Amino acid sequence: MAGVIDKKLYNSLERKLGYTFKDKNNLKKALTHRSYGSGHNERLEFLGDSVLNFLVAEMTFRFFENMREGDLSRLRSTLVNQDSLSQIGVKLGIQNCIKMGEGEKKSQGHQKPSIIADSFEAIIGAVYLEGGVKSAKAVIEKLFKPLVLKRQSIHIEKDPKTTLQELLQAKRHSLPRYSIDDIAGAAHSQIFRVKCQIPELNIVASGEGSSRRAAEQKAAIMAIKIFEK
Amino acid sequence: MAGVIDKKLYNSLERKLGYTFKDKNNLKKALTHRSYGSGHNERLEFLGDSVLNFLVAEMTFRFFENMREGDLSRLRSTLVNQDSLSQIGVKLGIQNCIKMGEGEKKSQGHQKPSIIADSFEAIIGAVYLEGGVKSAKAVIEKLFKPLVLKRQSIHIEKDPKTTLQELLQAKRHSLPRYSIDDIAGAAHSQIFRVKCQIPELNIVASGEGSSRRAAEQKAAIMAIKIFEK
Repeated sequence: MAGVIDKKLYNSLERKLGYTFKDKNNLKKALTHRSYGSGHNERLEFLGDSVLNFLVAEMTFRFFENMREGDLSRLRSTLVNQDSLSQIGVKLGIQNCIKMGEGEKKSQGHQKPSIIADSFEAIIGAVYLEGGVKSAKAVIEKLFKPLVLKRQSIHIEKDPKTTLQELLQAKRHSLPRYSIDDIAGAAHSQIFRVKCQIPELNIVASGEGSSRRAAEQKAAIMAIKIFEK
Repeated sequence: MAGVIDKKLYNSLERKLGYTFKDKNNLKKALTHRSYGSGHNERLEFLGDSVLNFLVAEMTFRFFENMREGDLSRLRSTLVNQDSLSQIGVKLGIQNCIKMGEGEKKSQGHQKPSIIADSFEAIIGAVYLEGGVKSAKAVIEKLFKPLVLKRQSIHIEKDPKTTLQELLQAKRHSLPRYSIDDIAGAAHSQIFRVKCQIPELNIVASGEGSSRRAAEQKAAIMAIKIFEK
């Protein structure tokens, strides 16, 4: 009976990973905690950790073309840590699949973030061993792309003026200059038009908004888009 | 003239790396310290660091089939650290190729292990970006394989009894038993024959030597070979 349950859980896990193991023993090993005894996942976890850190670094490198090294490191550490990995693990249903010793089971091992995160890393290690970098990359992209894209939009949208400034400083360019081009409309519904200039790069962008600040932020978004082209 | 010098240094570096850059600007960027200004290597360093850690982890995982996770981590950190990377960098001649600002030059920046190690990481990042995982793997294998093989032979040959014990403990097996099987030869040139048994695994190995300890070490080497088959 256990085999049938395993199979269903494994199928669900593989569907969510976007990877089907050719040899289910590889998946089984990745899901075996050291408390279970021989054939446990610690070596796979070591391997998977390095694969994961590499592929997430590679992704942030690609998605954040102008981000400097320190920020990339910080970003990666917000994406790859025990909390984030155990959350992904729970979404995959890993906690229901981990084999562990009786003692660990009794102390709620299935719910321990460290055990779930380690098993997730071991799964990445197992995918890499069986399917190579290409398969591991596909799994990581599927699981992390939404998180990376979210960061990317926060990065740009939360405070475009600050973002633009950081981008320019990263490339050692001089800072942008903002100026009011026009104020139109009645006193209670004014529309500000602001210009954002980076003379050094021949960038001129403009933005409109109901306040000077809102218009500046819009102009900064436009300038980022021109800058990142 | 600078271009000619660069070209010679680059050629030598590429030969030692075992990789020829299609676009020399990628190599140039990897060799540009942030003190030089724009187009510096910090992002490449971030990427290269993750590629390097991944590929060295992968290598140790393959070469040390029975090593447990904690030892693999320690081994990797002896292979990948500022000292080891700057030593490899110096062998490659990186220190002669780094572009840096005047201030950094004056403070002997070309000899700083941190700058050499970072540039080496950046080169790995550049190889990866241009040539993919396959090229980066070839470079890392070429540079690290001798170091890994050296560790491997130390690991087995330095103290086979300890190594065997560690291997067995890693798999939670019981410890081996050594016993003298035979002592032959005249008093001044005795030959000891020792048996090493691991009953749980049906392993029986024997070794001969001019002392009990030497014979035990030989028997342990045989037992490791049987165990690792």
